[in-house]
Amino acid sequence: MHAPGDVRVEDVAEPRILKPTDAIIRLSATCICGSDLWPYRGADEITEPLHMGHEYAGIVEEVGSEVDSIRPGQFVIGSFFASDNTCEICRAGYQSSCVHREMLGTSGAAQAQRMRVPLADGTLVATPGVPSDDLVPSLLAASDVLGTGWFGAVAAEAAPGKTVAVVGDGAVGLLAVLSAKQLGAERIIAMSRHESRQKLALDFGATDIVTERGDAGAARIKELTDGLGAHSVVEAVGTQESMMQAINATRPGGHVGFVGVLHDVVLRGDDIFMTHVHVHGGPAPVRRFLPELIDLIWTGQIDPGKVFDLELPLDQAADGYRAMDERRAIKVLLRP
Amino acid sequence: MHAPGDVRVEDVAEPRILKPTDAIIRLSATCICGSDLWPYRGADEITEPLHMGHEYAGIVEEVGSEVDSIRPGQFVIGSFFASDNTCEICRAGYQSSCVHREMLGTSGAAQAQRMRVPLADGTLVATPGVPSDDLVPSLLAASDVLGTGWFGAVAAEAAPGKTVAVVGDGAVGLLAVLSAKQLGAERIIAMSRHESRQKLALDFGATDIVTERGDAGAARIKELTDGLGAHSVVEAVGTQESMMQAINATRPGGHVGFVGVLHDVVLRGDDIFMTHVHVHGGPAPVRRFLPELIDLIWTGQIDPGKVFDLELPLDQAADGYRAMDERRAIKVLLRP
Repeated sequence: MHAPGDVRVEDVAEPRILKPTDAIIRLSATCICGSDLWPYRGADEITEPLHMGHEYAGIVEEVGSEVDSIRPGQFVIGSFFASDNTCEICRAGYQSSCVHREMLGTSGAAQAQRMRVPLADGTLVATPGVPSDDLVPSLLAASDVLGTGWFGAVAAEAAPGKTVAVVGDGAVGLLAVLSAKQLGAERIIAMSRHESRQKLALDFGATDIVTERGDAGAARIKELTDGLGAHSVVEAVGTQESMMQAINATRPGGHVGFVGVLHDVVLRGDDIFMTHVHVHGGPAPVRRFLPELIDLIWTGQIDPGKVFDLELPLDQAADGYRAMDERRAIKVLLRP
Repeated sequence: MHAPGDVRVEDVAEPRILKPTDAIIRLSATCICGSDLWPYRGADEITEPLHMGHEYAGIVEEVGSEVDSIRPGQFVIGSFFASDNTCEICRAGYQSSCVHREMLGTSGAAQAQRMRVPLADGTLVATPGVPSDDLVPSLLAASDVLGTGWFGAVAAEAAPGKTVAVVGDGAVGLLAVLSAKQLGAERIIAMSRHESRQKLALDFGATDIVTERGDAGAARIKELTDGLGAHSVVEAVGTQESMMQAINATRPGGHVGFVGVLHDVVLRGDDIFMTHVHVHGGPAPVRRFLPELIDLIWTGQIDPGKVFDLELPLDQAADGYRAMDERRAIKVLLRP
């Protein structure tokens, strides 16, 4: 990405092992993230051309001398933060705050044919075997959007008997619906005004659709919950309006799980003091959930790959960005 | 309180039963709260004279026709929010957000000889018998400062094996130390630069004292915790500096329990997104904890009444406010 709106597919230097804990993988599929649209739309500054992409699944080609558990030939999935998975923070389940974390992206861009993954043993999880082609989109989804939606639902404490509302109908929001369903939520309210996304939300387990937004959206959630608000609300957008919509849709004592990358969001003391909500979120520690998510996909219990409604060859990545920017596509899968 | 700094003890109309769910109690003791200092110092506007006080323990004198479980002659304790204790929010443990809550204070001021308590059945908890005089300060403490410190420690998820830091050395902060100890915390770091308060903190179970504040205070907590931060931090002040000190002293995945009434506090998205902390707090649902706290006091397991380091007759209330304002007293008990 050279500038907002300017995505080009170019030949760059081949990735290579830089540290003995690295691995090189050949991507089976990659994709465009909702968060890639922030710089695309000019909301994040671009000072030099960016190698884009942080969602990946593929075959290990080469590993560094200190890599133990990951071997060439394995099909692996990793998250957008490389983590050692052994430090105290990782062991507590917050691998995206690992003391040795490295953000994938510039150093190991995934919108490519091959990429370098640091801390391979801690970061990558191998599938039970090389998957058939039809499983690849779902496995790729686990790399970020599913893992992020799942974390949102976990942070919001979605559970049996609870009413869960989801703010945001992008891939993460839709997969938060799927996650809440898997976590046993009784009632799942998807907030969306786009028909195709509403359909997918219902398909993933939503029981109600709310089209109102902002204060009206929060008021509608209260109406649907005896005036109390939802037990759990997942925020999957990242704007001031969506965050307040999430907080105001939550009952006292309820939980807001926020996973949209916050942009210029400011919470006043009163927003969190008198509301009695629990607030938790941030960059999802996808690594925590990968073994379970891979198992659910491998055994056919969930099909998160449905969020990919446009598939393009990697060299048409620019078309993919346009389709997502114009909301013609929920999420674009790129085949290298 | 007629104006900032202007507290007078005056004869007012006797409280009386206004609703069939009310009770009238004769106060055995009452006290001055740290939050009473906000209007005293001019931080909260005073548009008409305020009847002060929301912490109370005493003998029931009269109950309304619909009061079932509370009877005249009982010694009772209640919280600063009256609650029905039957609605869904109360049953979830958030009585201070009860759908029928009424704030004690103006309508039923506790810095008095007698007061009206609404929703008596839901609000008041009777002790096993009429306590001896030496137990009264501790039972009174349960009404707010102990219950609030306890909620802060619960919201911060203080538990065995954890390191808990407490920001604020007022009565609530000191009793959050006691609460963390009771909840089994392994290490408890009290942040205080006042010798008498440090002593009480150590007496209540603190294992470490940190005198630094703000960013330096947070940095010191990180130093003491292998660079990671505390698992649990209780915020018991309510200013921007103390709230940020609490957030920045917490490790990723850790919990901030904030119970200081927030004044002009603003959290930026980045303060809570990249830090991965859990944030929860607000007006403590003291009613949730009262039965357990009364039991701990009645059986002599805790002695929270130690926070009262000055006792005055009610008619010297103005002196009590001055002593707390000038930090000559941690907390002032008033005998009606």
